[in-house]
Amino acid sequence: MIKQPASWLFFTLFAISGLTYAANKSVAPTANGIRLPKDYQDWKVIGTSHRTDNNSLRVIVGNDIAVTAAQSGKTNPWPKGSILGKLVWKDSQHPDWAEATVPGALSHIEFMLKDAVTYRKTGGWGYARWVGDKATPYGKDANFANACYSCHTTVKKDDYVFTRPVSLP
Amino acid sequence: MIKQPASWLFFTLFAISGLTYAANKSVAPTANGIRLPKDYQDWKVIGTSHRTDNNSLRVIVGNDIAVTAAQSGKTNPWPKGSILGKLVWKDSQHPDWAEATVPGALSHIEFMLKDAVTYRKTGGWGYARWVGDKATPYGKDANFANACYSCHTTVKKDDYVFTRPVSLP
Repeated sequence: MIKQPASWLFFTLFAISGLTYAANKSVAPTANGIRLPKDYQDWKVIGTSHRTDNNSLRVIVGNDIAVTAAQSGKTNPWPKGSILGKLVWKDSQHPDWAEATVPGALSHIEFMLKDAVTYRKTGGWGYARWVGDKATPYGKDANFANACYSCHTTVKKDDYVFTRPVSLP
Repeated sequence: MIKQPASWLFFTLFAISGLTYAANKSVAPTANGIRLPKDYQDWKVIGTSHRTDNNSLRVIVGNDIAVTAAQSGKTNPWPKGSILGKLVWKDSQHPDWAEATVPGALSHIEFMLKDAVTYRKTGGWGYARWVGDKATPYGKDANFANACYSCHTTVKKDDYVFTRPVSLP
């Protein structure tokens, strides 16, 4: 705890900010104090992608605040309280349809939580990731989020979000 | 109506079978009498895939019956009333991340409805597809489902379903 003052600072600010949600308390928080949203498996689809630079497939889901924003096109900036979840699997080839890349082993699940005050040092988004089936928190200290932020700066013009929400009939 | 007795037969059986759900009545039914599930955008994620044979990305979602079956591994056969939805987009390259294939234009949304009696002629699954943003029913008559069935026979051993449900922590 003494070695990681930043994570406790984040946790305190997080509680003060009012960005609250039901957390899965059986999963350890990330080093920056973010807890796994309890009901993320129930969230609606916002997008999907296949990355050939790291051979992974992902589905992007969102909490109600994020989905409402996505459906109304009000995502620049995304409203406070938006949470985007990315469910990421390693590429696998479908055994019965060679031209289909499908989910293999779970790589990780990761989340972006929007709160311009709490997460002002990383562009207004808090970053969290849990690795593998056991949902092991990623990052040895709270600084891991800087790497997330750095990469997402590529799309600063889109409020740091790569995902372009889909629309459906 | 006189020219398409098969579709009306299907529709009647459908109503009798008890495989009922809230339908989006502003969208025309398919020629085999299947209506678009009203709440499919709220369904949970069951899988995803990227097909390089037709350059499309898809997210597979399921109704509650299907999701419960998927989470408990009881999918061979899938229980009566299961509905699987596939949301399919044409490939697009992310403008800010060249190695990411992301959804382009909506190709179609398609569904498989499990009822071994009603859909016995197509392996126990009813097939439905709506094309594009306007959700235009696919298929000029009820026979379109034969092509769906034919292709899905590839995975008859898996109750005609290509999707292998993901699991999440």
